[in-house]
Amino acid sequence: MKALIFDHELHIEEIPDPQPGKGDALIKILNSSICNTDLEILKGYMGFQGIPGHEFVGKVVNKESKFFGQRVVGEINCSCGKCLMCKTKRRSHCQNRTVLGIYGRPGVFAEFTLLPEINLHPVPDEIMDTDAVFTEPIAAALEIFEQVEIDPKKSAFIFGAGKLGLLIAQVFQAKELMYVLFDKNEEKVKRARSLGLLCMPLHAMKPGGKAEVCVDCTGHPDGIRLAINHVYPKGKVILKTTVANPLKFDTNQVVINEIEIIGSRCGPFAQALEMLKNKKIKTAPMVSEIVGFKDIFKGFRLAKKKGVVKVLIKH
Amino acid sequence: MKALIFDHELHIEEIPDPQPGKGDALIKILNSSICNTDLEILKGYMGFQGIPGHEFVGKVVNKESKFFGQRVVGEINCSCGKCLMCKTKRRSHCQNRTVLGIYGRPGVFAEFTLLPEINLHPVPDEIMDTDAVFTEPIAAALEIFEQVEIDPKKSAFIFGAGKLGLLIAQVFQAKELMYVLFDKNEEKVKRARSLGLLCMPLHAMKPGGKAEVCVDCTGHPDGIRLAINHVYPKGKVILKTTVANPLKFDTNQVVINEIEIIGSRCGPFAQALEMLKNKKIKTAPMVSEIVGFKDIFKGFRLAKKKGVVKVLIKH
Repeated sequence: MKALIFDHELHIEEIPDPQPGKGDALIKILNSSICNTDLEILKGYMGFQGIPGHEFVGKVVNKESKFFGQRVVGEINCSCGKCLMCKTKRRSHCQNRTVLGIYGRPGVFAEFTLLPEINLHPVPDEIMDTDAVFTEPIAAALEIFEQVEIDPKKSAFIFGAGKLGLLIAQVFQAKELMYVLFDKNEEKVKRARSLGLLCMPLHAMKPGGKAEVCVDCTGHPDGIRLAINHVYPKGKVILKTTVANPLKFDTNQVVINEIEIIGSRCGPFAQALEMLKNKKIKTAPMVSEIVGFKDIFKGFRLAKKKGVVKVLIKH
Repeated sequence: MKALIFDHELHIEEIPDPQPGKGDALIKILNSSICNTDLEILKGYMGFQGIPGHEFVGKVVNKESKFFGQRVVGEINCSCGKCLMCKTKRRSHCQNRTVLGIYGRPGVFAEFTLLPEINLHPVPDEIMDTDAVFTEPIAAALEIFEQVEIDPKKSAFIFGAGKLGLLIAQVFQAKELMYVLFDKNEEKVKRARSLGLLCMPLHAMKPGGKAEVCVDCTGHPDGIRLAINHVYPKGKVILKTTVANPLKFDTNQVVINEIEIIGSRCGPFAQALEMLKNKKIKTAPMVSEIVGFKDIFKGFRLAKKKGVVKVLIKH
């Protein structure tokens, strides 16, 4: 098969098709998309080498699989089922895990990928391929609500109107929670507003403006400082940003203001599919470009550009 | 009155007695003690200048006070009662607060101090002065349990067998919770063991040793890294350390492992007094030295020394 390989640089190679083991599904990728994590990987994040990519919708093509012929999305953490984390309902934190296109496991920027069947979720017919590819980031947005109970009467600020920020704000809106989405970039503010979101330029924040919950999805090392500066004492900061160059900050403020910082990563796929099925999330305005797999380099170039939200790859 | 003043350096000065305003108690200090925060203030923490000191027991001497003649301890945060924090049960985070001997308010290393009556707690007769002076740090230890529900079946590591660490471990023990206290310093390990605590030298930690809750009370910039390295995914890190030179750390790990970091500061005085009254906390072995107020410089010199736990000042 043809696959995109990252080993210090990106190139397309012809490599042998992956061979499914017991319990594996062989998935023919229909659509994939480029995530910030992929861009960070190109900068050295996780030291990953191999086939990147983890956002996808595909079709199971090996006859032995119980999902044969079905359209699926897949959770990205592959767990051992035996370690303490797996046995205490923290499978996505398995001590022996591999992560699709991020850590120790080839990803989806290829003709085929492999995933354990336990990771798969069939996609309802109502959801188009170009929507289904958003399942993973929507699940990541929903993870916040798995971790923190958010009081509908209390204020929340979401920092960063990028890909994830737009989805998180849409989830807040769908759940009828109070929020304001902030971004430095006026273009991003406009785009967020075109999605019907309550979005303000960061400079319009009133001096000393604070909320009970601040979500950092800026994807920028400074995001956590911003969130900590704008959260009330005893408030919660949800941290979504991971970057190749670790972010650093002063923790005195965290102790003095008794702030709670909650790292947040992958989330519930079933709920994400449910939201897509019920049209609770608008994805179409977030798609800046759809390129064919042979044009994936162009896709990466576009994904790095200012003003571009989501680049989808049609395989 | 005679007072210890810090203005870039420490010196004793003769200054006018403080004059109580409405609702203030004038407190004659009986005993005070030196806390790590005092030592950090001497290094520039909070930019504080004036009379330091916030751990004390004293006697109310102004006749107008409803506490006149009573022995009291006092909460250190003085609040306005009007701001959002005060109105939402976060008085210790009052937006207009002053903090006894730490921020905008003269402290207790003097003959007298002032505190609003609302901050005071009468000390039961069963509690000696040299025990009562521990109320504030025991309350700080108890704050952890106000913030986090700790499962008695789950493991906890406490890092740092200094003053606060010894109190936190004693509270864990009194509450019959699982814990191991760790310290690099063998002498501190011995001392902790002499208090009947389960304490291990840090080098005896098994490789990859992890707990569900890690408390950093090392007082050292590296403490948070230690706590984060030894907490399980989705575990909780309680942060007690504040230092003049802000600690910095990598937050990718926090996101990837979905760790919760909880800053923790001042706590419930009434519960702390209850524990002292019921002899749940051993303070005597923690007192390294009692010096007279005229020897307070010697007290500070001692407090900085390795092997010294708590230095008490008899006024």
